[in-house]
Amino acid sequence: MSREGKRKGKEAILMPPRVAGNGLLDRRAFLTGIAKAAGVVTVAGLSSDILATAQAIETPSPAVPPWMKVPGKPFRGYGSPSKYEDQVKRTIFQPYKELAPGAGASMTPLHQLHGTITPSGLHFERHHNGVPDIDPSQHQLLIHGLVKRPLMFSVEALHRYPTMSRVYFLECSGNSFPNAAAEPPQMSCGAIHGLVSCSEWTGVPAALLLEEAGIDPKGKWVIAEAADAAAMNRSIPLEKMLDDAMIALYQNGEHLRPEQGYPVRLLLPGWEGNASVKWLRRLEVTEGPAYSREETSKYTDLMPDGKARQFTFVMGVKSVITHPSAGLHMQGPGFYEISGLAWSGSGRITRVEVSADSGKSWAEAALQEPVLSKSLVRFRIPWEWNGGPALLQSRAADDKGHVQGTRALWTAQYSTGNVYHYNAIQTWRVSPEGEITNVYL
Amino acid sequence: MSREGKRKGKEAILMPPRVAGNGLLDRRAFLTGIAKAAGVVTVAGLSSDILATAQAIETPSPAVPPWMKVPGKPFRGYGSPSKYEDQVKRTIFQPYKELAPGAGASMTPLHQLHGTITPSGLHFERHHNGVPDIDPSQHQLLIHGLVKRPLMFSVEALHRYPTMSRVYFLECSGNSFPNAAAEPPQMSCGAIHGLVSCSEWTGVPAALLLEEAGIDPKGKWVIAEAADAAAMNRSIPLEKMLDDAMIALYQNGEHLRPEQGYPVRLLLPGWEGNASVKWLRRLEVTEGPAYSREETSKYTDLMPDGKARQFTFVMGVKSVITHPSAGLHMQGPGFYEISGLAWSGSGRITRVEVSADSGKSWAEAALQEPVLSKSLVRFRIPWEWNGGPALLQSRAADDKGHVQGTRALWTAQYSTGNVYHYNAIQTWRVSPEGEITNVYL
Repeated sequence: MSREGKRKGKEAILMPPRVAGNGLLDRRAFLTGIAKAAGVVTVAGLSSDILATAQAIETPSPAVPPWMKVPGKPFRGYGSPSKYEDQVKRTIFQPYKELAPGAGASMTPLHQLHGTITPSGLHFERHHNGVPDIDPSQHQLLIHGLVKRPLMFSVEALHRYPTMSRVYFLECSGNSFPNAAAEPPQMSCGAIHGLVSCSEWTGVPAALLLEEAGIDPKGKWVIAEAADAAAMNRSIPLEKMLDDAMIALYQNGEHLRPEQGYPVRLLLPGWEGNASVKWLRRLEVTEGPAYSREETSKYTDLMPDGKARQFTFVMGVKSVITHPSAGLHMQGPGFYEISGLAWSGSGRITRVEVSADSGKSWAEAALQEPVLSKSLVRFRIPWEWNGGPALLQSRAADDKGHVQGTRALWTAQYSTGNVYHYNAIQTWRVSPEGEITNVYL
Repeated sequence: MSREGKRKGKEAILMPPRVAGNGLLDRRAFLTGIAKAAGVVTVAGLSSDILATAQAIETPSPAVPPWMKVPGKPFRGYGSPSKYEDQVKRTIFQPYKELAPGAGASMTPLHQLHGTITPSGLHFERHHNGVPDIDPSQHQLLIHGLVKRPLMFSVEALHRYPTMSRVYFLECSGNSFPNAAAEPPQMSCGAIHGLVSCSEWTGVPAALLLEEAGIDPKGKWVIAEAADAAAMNRSIPLEKMLDDAMIALYQNGEHLRPEQGYPVRLLLPGWEGNASVKWLRRLEVTEGPAYSREETSKYTDLMPDGKARQFTFVMGVKSVITHPSAGLHMQGPGFYEISGLAWSGSGRITRVEVSADSGKSWAEAALQEPVLSKSLVRFRIPWEWNGGPALLQSRAADDKGHVQGTRALWTAQYSTGNVYHYNAIQTWRVSPEGEITNVYL
């Protein structure tokens, strides 16, 4: 495909540099101000190359559409998305639908979203016995165990405390489990990787409440218990509770949604979602862990020697290309923006590289500022698809030196059947027909 | 009120420094890590002082609530808030309800929210003839006028372009207009100041599309027109369009909500909301402004000499305390966190000061990081209310040297009747009975 002169009367233009195989272009190409300052390319040149998607017209007189001819709808107390977007929904996974409809998960449709914040209505869910219908005027949080003075907090009392707000991702330990199967599942990016979401959380530092109760020097762990019908509980090292743990009350500005723990949840930044106990009703300071169901028979990692590794809280460095991704369709050769999300439970993402030739060559993607610790980061790189086959991959690195590895490296770490902490590089195959599928490399 | 020894057996503790009159405490007091590192105060000391709101208990055995005894609700494709929060709604203002139900506004309930992101369902609305019901497969954006090649973009085509994501506030030029009245209105903080909201917006740099069309050197302005039944339009200086203007497609991760311009809107960071034309269907490059209805008879500022000032796009530096605020009730003397929002259309907030004694003394509030340009910023400062009368105020400053002024200074700038660009200091009066009211100072 010729990259110049495809439009009649077009000026001669500078083209953006190719930075890796199979059409990857310089990440700075479309950062208008930056590109100009750096003299990388002219914006005009780049824009003209995109024009394949816009329509040049001779007589610019747009027809008046029907919705300009009638008064629109009036105001609403609380809004919702357009009816034309009602296919943008979570994918629901109920493995025991008849027996236990409230056990399972629902995944964020990552491939239908953009930016980094997940709208609260599409935040992933993971419930062990459904969403409890909690009356906040009756709910209480108890802090007890190895403390000097046991304390009981009403929700109203919690709202009196000093608050903090932070943007954090939350990822289920089982996220991406479909890719642990022997054959690559043909599902959307969201259905595979959508057990991760990102919100602005506001709440009270857990340390304030624990230190108010006064921790006995023998206390080393905290058992967090939910007020759901599973009485879900997890054991958390006290050190994390006194570091950056939050007793969250608000999500994206408003009170927590029921599915994310209304009216109060624990939030452990960067750690597997299951440990951030929702509908929090009890924090018990103890000498050791509880060895509960969700940290023995579940949420443990099957190792090659047949043993299971326990208390692997921190989520690994990870990234996934959301656009283009499986199930979406290419619209013919030409310009595309490759875009996706990266995150690390250990800290800040420092670099995301993208390959269009199955990892033979890599180019650095642009990271959307501000790049926050333990938060989703949007990455982008321009791509000129030549219409041939392509294998798209992304690879993230964090400020602790972790680099996302291949699927072969990931599977070698575990025994067959492990479904937790999957963080291998995702490969999307683009066919000459423009179909996008999930492949293992 | 004694600040020590109010609990039996309590240790002697360091108390946080008072930093201004009438009970304002050091902003670093509850930043646990920071406070410790700086040696300002012990966290234990601070926490103990808060204990008035928690309940010390002798026998820590919480009752099992009813919602733990039945399976919870199953999964949903798209979530919504708890039924217990259904009073958290926008305040609807329809001045011509019978004649034109779609003309008016609805305000974000700032006093019921926390953090900085506004949930999209509670983003303020301002419509001139209702919300059009736009089919995205039929909607088009035309760029024409003084351009080399007029271009028509389908929504699908726009989604092919390079994107950017930014967190920006959006504020109606008429925000806080109730406070322009001669007597202070007794309304909630949201009903007075809630024509401001903040979202993560994702879209295409407007510069890319305009430069693709090729701007004629005679072009200096751009007329932006909406596809609503008012055909709302505004004239924008070309310079802004080529600077940081965005053709927005997503709001807080998902497609724009209908009330905020679905499927495509203009977004002019820091400028009065009216100019960020929603349901965008046309950008016409021109030599001069259109002098349309919304930039002549409306959205102009009445000056003391009887003239009206036009094209005052940039929103001023501003802040408001959201907690506590009018209509909320104090729960007796003791610890409170004073918290609010600050923003500036000119750039970054650098400082917010709070006074509890009607401006006689001021203390610096903590700003929630990251402090982003042209975005809402959450500020916080601890306060020990002694139960006496208090007059609470906040005052913001930005990185361009602007400082928020008093109401007297603001009114002196304009003629009576001006309702645009109100950005004076808000005063909340706390009575000894714990009632909070709106007062002018």
